Amino acid sequence: MPSLSHIIFGEPFPNKAELHERLDKVRGLAVFASDPISSNAYATEAIMTVLVILGSGALNLTMPIAIGIAALIALVVFSYTQTILHYPGGGGSYIVTKDNLGTQPSLLAGAALLIDYVLTVAVSVSAGVRAVSSAFPAAHDHRVLIALLVILLITWMNLRGIRESGSVFAIPTYAFVVGVLLVIVIGLVRYFGLLGTAPLPPHPDPVPATGALEGFAYIWLLLRAFAAGCTALTGIEAISDGVQAFKAPESINAAQTMVAMAVIAMTLFLGISFLATHMELVPTESNTILSQMTAAVAGRGILYYWVQIFTAAILFLAANTGYQDFPRLGSFLARDGFMPRWMMNRGDRLVFNSGIVMLAFLSSILVIIFQAEEITMLPLYALGVMLCFTLSQAGMVRLMTRIGQLTPGETLKTMETEVHYEEGWQWKRAVNATGAVVTGVVFLVLMATKFREGAWIVVVAIPLILLLFRWVKRHYVNVAEQLRLRNLSDEDLSEVADVILIPMADIHRGTMRALKYAERLSDHVRAVSIVTSEAQRERLLDKWARYPELTAPAELVLIDYEYRNVLQPLVSYITQVSKEEFPNQLITVAVPEFVPRSLPEQFLHNQTANLLRVRLRGQPNVVVIDVPYHL
Amino acid sequence: MPSLSHIIFGEPFPNKAELHERLDKVRGLAVFASDPISSNAYATEAIMTVLVILGSGALNLTMPIAIGIAALIALVVFSYTQTILHYPGGGGSYIVTKDNLGTQPSLLAGAALLIDYVLTVAVSVSAGVRAVSSAFPAAHDHRVLIALLVILLITWMNLRGIRESGSVFAIPTYAFVVGVLLVIVIGLVRYFGLLGTAPLPPHPDPVPATGALEGFAYIWLLLRAFAAGCTALTGIEAISDGVQAFKAPESINAAQTMVAMAVIAMTLFLGISFLATHMELVPTESNTILSQMTAAVAGRGILYYWVQIFTAAILFLAANTGYQDFPRLGSFLARDGFMPRWMMNRGDRLVFNSGIVMLAFLSSILVIIFQAEEITMLPLYALGVMLCFTLSQAGMVRLMTRIGQLTPGETLKTMETEVHYEEGWQWKRAVNATGAVVTGVVFLVLMATKFREGAWIVVVAIPLILLLFRWVKRHYVNVAEQLRLRNLSDEDLSEVADVILIPMADIHRGTMRALKYAERLSDHVRAVSIVTSEAQRERLLDKWARYPELTAPAELVLIDYEYRNVLQPLVSYITQVSKEEFPNQLITVAVPEFVPRSLPEQFLHNQTANLLRVRLRGQPNVVVIDVPYHL
Repeated sequence: MPSLSHIIFGEPFPNKAELHERLDKVRGLAVFASDPISSNAYATEAIMTVLVILGSGALNLTMPIAIGIAALIALVVFSYTQTILHYPGGGGSYIVTKDNLGTQPSLLAGAALLIDYVLTVAVSVSAGVRAVSSAFPAAHDHRVLIALLVILLITWMNLRGIRESGSVFAIPTYAFVVGVLLVIVIGLVRYFGLLGTAPLPPHPDPVPATGALEGFAYIWLLLRAFAAGCTALTGIEAISDGVQAFKAPESINAAQTMVAMAVIAMTLFLGISFLATHMELVPTESNTILSQMTAAVAGRGILYYWVQIFTAAILFLAANTGYQDFPRLGSFLARDGFMPRWMMNRGDRLVFNSGIVMLAFLSSILVIIFQAEEITMLPLYALGVMLCFTLSQAGMVRLMTRIGQLTPGETLKTMETEVHYEEGWQWKRAVNATGAVVTGVVFLVLMATKFREGAWIVVVAIPLILLLFRWVKRHYVNVAEQLRLRNLSDEDLSEVADVILIPMADIHRGTMRALKYAERLSDHVRAVSIVTSEAQRERLLDKWARYPELTAPAELVLIDYEYRNVLQPLVSYITQVSKEEFPNQLITVAVPEFVPRSLPEQFLHNQTANLLRVRLRGQPNVVVIDVPYHL
Repeated sequence: MPSLSHIIFGEPFPNKAELHERLDKVRGLAVFASDPISSNAYATEAIMTVLVILGSGALNLTMPIAIGIAALIALVVFSYTQTILHYPGGGGSYIVTKDNLGTQPSLLAGAALLIDYVLTVAVSVSAGVRAVSSAFPAAHDHRVLIALLVILLITWMNLRGIRESGSVFAIPTYAFVVGVLLVIVIGLVRYFGLLGTAPLPPHPDPVPATGALEGFAYIWLLLRAFAAGCTALTGIEAISDGVQAFKAPESINAAQTMVAMAVIAMTLFLGISFLATHMELVPTESNTILSQMTAAVAGRGILYYWVQIFTAAILFLAANTGYQDFPRLGSFLARDGFMPRWMMNRGDRLVFNSGIVMLAFLSSILVIIFQAEEITMLPLYALGVMLCFTLSQAGMVRLMTRIGQLTPGETLKTMETEVHYEEGWQWKRAVNATGAVVTGVVFLVLMATKFREGAWIVVVAIPLILLLFRWVKRHYVNVAEQLRLRNLSDEDLSEVADVILIPMADIHRGTMRALKYAERLSDHVRAVSIVTSEAQRERLLDKWARYPELTAPAELVLIDYEYRNVLQPLVSYITQVSKEEFPNQLITVAVPEFVPRSLPEQFLHNQTANLLRVRLRGQPNVVVIDVPYHL
């Protein structure tokens, strides 16, 4: 009969069933690009939400800011193609930073990435739910619950281990791209009055400015709007992590896919920003900009529902990439000793169960705290992304320098990759350096502008995670030290004292069984009873005398006690025997224990045996034997 | 250094420190009467809350109903004095019913009493908080929180073990009685215009009837009002439980105290009901009838705050009686095997800790569910009280019959008491029979009239509690059967096989220590490793070969496994060794286990040792040894 766990999560896979499907560029784009492309569902809106503070008149500033962000995307992507070409084995920020800048910077990248993956799930799911509730407003009041259910569903799918081919993933990504492109094209045609189409309806209700800003305050607001739009860059690095998932030649295919992804993302981003500005749309909480735009351009017809449904679908897919990345990074960190080692354990379906569950838990907490409003979560989001870009590209600068120092034909093997001398290392290094500097500046801008809106949480969380890494590492180093076999001599291991103590509250078949067991192992057995009344003493002595063939080889130790917490004198006696009678030797305590037939019945008994075991754990030289007596 | 628990709950008392303070009648009244006397704080109001459905005009029916209830009190008290005189050792419903009607009826009484004690706490604390919030309306919004804090405080005091003399308890009881009597006297004087006092102010806003009732519906409403007022009878039986707390002659003193209590309770009840009716007071949620009456009679001066504060105080004291009764009844039931045996365990301060904590938990849940509104809890309350009266007095009828069958001078020893032939057993039996019948009828009336208001909860809960009693009893009988030593022969105890299995994932100092320990106990030691990769196999064989002096006496068993859940094949192997190689013998599994220095560090390790122990508990013939390795 299959167990419940097998029904829910599927039959276990053997170790050798690891999946090695390779993706072509079309499918690879769909799998890896869902995160950056789906950012278009909210990036423009994030900019406008800041600008609208100046009234709807200020929204025409959206377009110049969007162009700046598109330029940033181009720079980062260009820089990342270098990473892909030099780390065909996979070059996430953690790996590249570790390989070139050392352990401490790589842990910084690791901490930032862990936070970002959690945010990827929380933000994408929340944005996906908002896409649904823009189309079906009744869902708006239940968005937190819906978001949590979606997280549960994605978690379940990932615990089963998703083994579907890239084709399934391709559907929402391409359907979203096609839908939004159609909206943009129709919108542009109608906006410019081409083909004799009806002009777009003007937006009905302009928002008044809540205050006029001048000078520095004005620039500050522009910076904040720019910072808000930087969420469009999230997820760009996903391809660099997954180079090995592509068909050969892996690096070339991955790099080309990355460029294609950038082109698509920029096109959609600029198109949406252009139309949103010129249609004078105003962000509202219950109806997304993309939803407003689609409805205005094409009416609430098939195209509208197409765009909303596939927006939700691509966003849920983007959340799913968090489920790929977080457990994998967790396992890397665990392998290097910075996270609990069980994060390396694969479950029945060959996935990193504990990482998946941890991610689901953390992202659910974020969804609850932020009430599934992705716009309020965004200030936390781009910060970590920019930090990783900066570290990763600084690492590439270092790598390019090392490449420049090679003689032609010479090979350099680093921990994670293998490079040769190459022409043009100077200009490549310059590109990477520019990328590092620009993203570093953006990082500082983000930190400054979004600090009070929530970025401080990240600023607090990263050092805490670094401390955790350090504590975990120290523990493992320490344990390894103490368990090492080298120079092990027999004297290092404790001698075993020939004594077994049996605590017993009463004398019955269960304790007799323990007595017989102990007598088989040792010539020196003591039954220890705590006596709290004269009647109990007599009953014990009487029963003890009744079965001499069992009790004769042992000694009965009765300890008077006038309180009720009988564990206390028992532990004291055991400690005394351990420390005074047999110092530096292992002594043995055999605990007779009932095992009731069912768990509820367990609650009908004093938990003395369990409590005693817990108390004795603190004693280094006491071995505990559980002698079960099944009822 | 004193432990935290000793600071909070006090130093442990030795067993011999049991308290045997005896109370005189004045203090005895204060200790035992707080519950019935405090019912006056809400009983009249409970009647009026029903009648006001007919409009404030119908409230003049309060007085006749109150007289009926006072008559019922007189009957019950008269009947209970017989119980006290015949059960000087204490004659709560559970004891009297068990002694005369047998186990099943006594369990019915026990279940009803447990429910009532929980309600005593929840209702009294809620009513006390309402007395406070009538005087200080700002407290009204926080009444649930305040009530929970009061329960926490009473729980803490009871866990410390209240050792104050009856004098402390006397203050709130007598202060309440004196305060309310003063209000009644001043009220009567002003109502009848005696001594030239100013007449009472008429009630300003009469409530219109929400509907006119005729015929059966009218009678039904009167019955409901009567049923509501029956809460005045709660707590009457407390004295019969605590006869031994009185000074000698215990029975006589207790009986006289009971009569005094009844006189006081009836006086206050009738006085409050008379004034409330004639002053045309109308019950409201935020201001109790007693508060309205006191304010109208004596203004919001010293007397007003005196009455309100001591109303709260006597109600909290009444709640405290639940803390005396519930744990004690729980321990009786546990002694008889119907509740978990640990309910008999006394804590450091000689009180029944688990009963106290259980009561606090259950009453807090009621307070939360009913939002600390005692009037809505009352329908659940009187039902159990009446059931116990009926059973207890039916038991007394039986006892009187047995007394009548004795010859003069003959003595009858029952389980719980000792009786002789006595004159007039016929009329005493008649009184008890009348009491049983009347309270039985009231019970049916309560059940019928309050069923939909909440009494159904009790009707559902009692059978569930009875099932629980039965299940617990059956378990203990079964365990005792199986543990019995009688006819124990050596063959009954399992033989011990000379084999020790040591599961080990790796070979290091911790596992070597376990190996050495096992070799000391047995000549047949097998180290069992689950192998999931070739590299692991080689590493194990290599390390095994390196320390022949330790490993030579043992055998290394390697089991190939191509999944990741290594517990599975380990448990299978152990089961197979137990069932096939050594059937019907005890085999031993020694589990090497790290013990990290701190609890958080525990989370950095796989819990394999713990999980294995849990899995092996199911195997009747496997003894588990924990060999700790302290880091």
